[in-house]
Amino acid sequence: MAFLNDNYLKLRAGYLFPEIARRVTTFCETHPDVARRVIRCGIGDVTEPLPQACIQALHKAVDEMAVRDTFHGYGPEQGYPFLRKAIAENEYRARGLDIADDEIFVSDGSKCDCGNILDIFGGENQIAVMDPVYPVYVDTNVMAGHTGPADEFGGFEGLLYLPCTSANGFVPELPAEKADIIYLCYPNNPTGATATRDQLTAWVNYALSHESIILFDAAYEAYISDPAIPRSIFEIPGARECAIEFRSFSKNGGFTGLRCAFTVVPKTLTALARNGERRPLHPLWQRRMTTKFNGVSYPVQRAAEAIYSDAGKEQVAALIQHYMGNARILRDACAEIGLDVFGGTNAPYIWVSTPPGIGSWDMFDIMLEDANIVVTPGAGFGSAGEGFFRISAFNSRANAEEAARRIIAMDFEKNA
Amino acid sequence: MAFLNDNYLKLRAGYLFPEIARRVTTFCETHPDVARRVIRCGIGDVTEPLPQACIQALHKAVDEMAVRDTFHGYGPEQGYPFLRKAIAENEYRARGLDIADDEIFVSDGSKCDCGNILDIFGGENQIAVMDPVYPVYVDTNVMAGHTGPADEFGGFEGLLYLPCTSANGFVPELPAEKADIIYLCYPNNPTGATATRDQLTAWVNYALSHESIILFDAAYEAYISDPAIPRSIFEIPGARECAIEFRSFSKNGGFTGLRCAFTVVPKTLTALARNGERRPLHPLWQRRMTTKFNGVSYPVQRAAEAIYSDAGKEQVAALIQHYMGNARILRDACAEIGLDVFGGTNAPYIWVSTPPGIGSWDMFDIMLEDANIVVTPGAGFGSAGEGFFRISAFNSRANAEEAARRIIAMDFEKNA
Repeated sequence: MAFLNDNYLKLRAGYLFPEIARRVTTFCETHPDVARRVIRCGIGDVTEPLPQACIQALHKAVDEMAVRDTFHGYGPEQGYPFLRKAIAENEYRARGLDIADDEIFVSDGSKCDCGNILDIFGGENQIAVMDPVYPVYVDTNVMAGHTGPADEFGGFEGLLYLPCTSANGFVPELPAEKADIIYLCYPNNPTGATATRDQLTAWVNYALSHESIILFDAAYEAYISDPAIPRSIFEIPGARECAIEFRSFSKNGGFTGLRCAFTVVPKTLTALARNGERRPLHPLWQRRMTTKFNGVSYPVQRAAEAIYSDAGKEQVAALIQHYMGNARILRDACAEIGLDVFGGTNAPYIWVSTPPGIGSWDMFDIMLEDANIVVTPGAGFGSAGEGFFRISAFNSRANAEEAARRIIAMDFEKNA
Repeated sequence: MAFLNDNYLKLRAGYLFPEIARRVTTFCETHPDVARRVIRCGIGDVTEPLPQACIQALHKAVDEMAVRDTFHGYGPEQGYPFLRKAIAENEYRARGLDIADDEIFVSDGSKCDCGNILDIFGGENQIAVMDPVYPVYVDTNVMAGHTGPADEFGGFEGLLYLPCTSANGFVPELPAEKADIIYLCYPNNPTGATATRDQLTAWVNYALSHESIILFDAAYEAYISDPAIPRSIFEIPGARECAIEFRSFSKNGGFTGLRCAFTVVPKTLTALARNGERRPLHPLWQRRMTTKFNGVSYPVQRAAEAIYSDAGKEQVAALIQHYMGNARILRDACAEIGLDVFGGTNAPYIWVSTPPGIGSWDMFDIMLEDANIVVTPGAGFGSAGEGFFRISAFNSRANAEEAARRIIAMDFEKNA
């Protein structure tokens, strides 16, 4: 008799984004007259075309696949040397950070890596997540059996939730409890907050003294313009001994539909085996990737490489500038009607307080019904997200401007 | 203190193909004069360029990604409806098999799916694998903690090994022991054997009566030319209640470097929860894929769709004919020098008995040193593979012909 993984039955049915999609579909079906007016500022998906440098690299690589002598079959599971080198060189060594080519593992997405990384850890670790939190961190731990059941607010027994509030600038305080594996995400999804060098240093020191590991999700690092804000956890001394970093081409090059990301596992990072021995994690992740993954599509790896060409760098900078221009417009609109706004200056997300007396999901419905704007309710990211909603800056300029006009025209008095 | 997954420490260091790569590299370094002569008939990687229909689809999709109005960001994690429909229609419904579009889950590779599928099963299942076996089935179960340690022959405690021998035509007998999850792979990698309708019917009936689940790997189905041999487990009545099928575009369209595959999870397939309830597995796999995966690259999905165009079908047929022509040439060469040969008629692998007194790995070394041909030692696939080696037909015609000439010229007397 085959048994299923009972942990899946603990998951809540409505994963945040499917629930949003369901509400939007229902709204559009019941309001066909305004369905075309709906502006989506919900999911963090890019809207602008790929950089021309990537387009050219893709065409060239496709042509190589058409000819026997230049055809590429299976590549190295961890990524082609040309891409691992371009990443290590441009993202790290050029910034004075000591990361070797073979510490870079190229993958098909940060979401995948954030989930798959749990494969190499034992079940006995105390897991800490930020609250509000990117749901994938929580759900993959539930699936792996690291939690008990969910409570009525959607929190899972056994996880250590680290509240991120306006009081702490959305960077959690160090916990009194032990935390073996700690997810940190900066620039943050969903709050758009960034962490200062001092704050990250405190976390690295916590991890070193507790022999914990930080899983640092830096998928949005390209949006940091303030030179004082660290773009990589490896800017913090000691991080090579306690951190894994997740990075993506989705939000800089616009690769959400193309699929390419990478994870940095330093060779100096260790964890405990049950016999008490410390072992490096690099060979475990290498084994995981070579056994359960078969590499990223060759043309896509060439496109990722092209991001590091001179033209690619310029085109990516223009994309970031475009989205951050949207962020400013949307941020200003929310501020103009008196809402408290956070984020949106070094991140493509704006985190907005709901008006007094209006909950996150109610605000979602109001925005959809009154302004025909899709946002993401803060409560969908965890209980500390109640009282907030997230606006994504990923949009055309025209949509961002129109959304701003509609926000400014909103009348919260009638809903309060 | 962060703990690692101790199960990884049970894995043997030398995964088969890295060990082969190591020996080949060493040989080439110590024999630079013949390094260029080496013909690789080891790993099952395609050598011929992509079908033109796929190349055209790729270029077109890349151009779409260059323009805002036709740009594609995140797609559905399970695959675009256009591809799920093309697959269900062409692979199943056109052959009279009842598979719905949404029972098709598009992924970036069968290796990935074969490993990831374990996510949705409980740890209490008795796992059965064929011996010889594709190593990924075993290693992913070791990683998931479904086994004890390895014995001196590389077999893992707790797995039920089903011997596949020339006596049973490389199709295992039904076990006396209980088996909850059973991996079957036909056409088989590594033996090149196929299973008859009666043999598969016996297995489906076993699974139905024991409430087991068959994980059916049909990555090589395109190589079946005998109309009597089933190409899908779903040709067997009752399979919708007991089987998951893995399929790939790697070996028909030559997508090993492009990355696209699919898994079929029928909505009628159930497994037991711990409370004794039967639950469908389809929602679990859907949840797994939407949470831990983000879809296949859009241009690659368009390329996969193109395989089902009239031109695509013709071009794939020509590729299969090419590789099967190689298989015949290599098979005949081995037979000519008196070796027992199996497979190679409805599969791109030829499974060859080693001469008396020569073990698998010794034969690997002899083939490399004397004929400069890389094969795969049968023992690398499990203890029942000892006394065999695998030749892959994935090569250029010129290489296959040259390899055949060298095989025919070999003198086993001196090695016996």
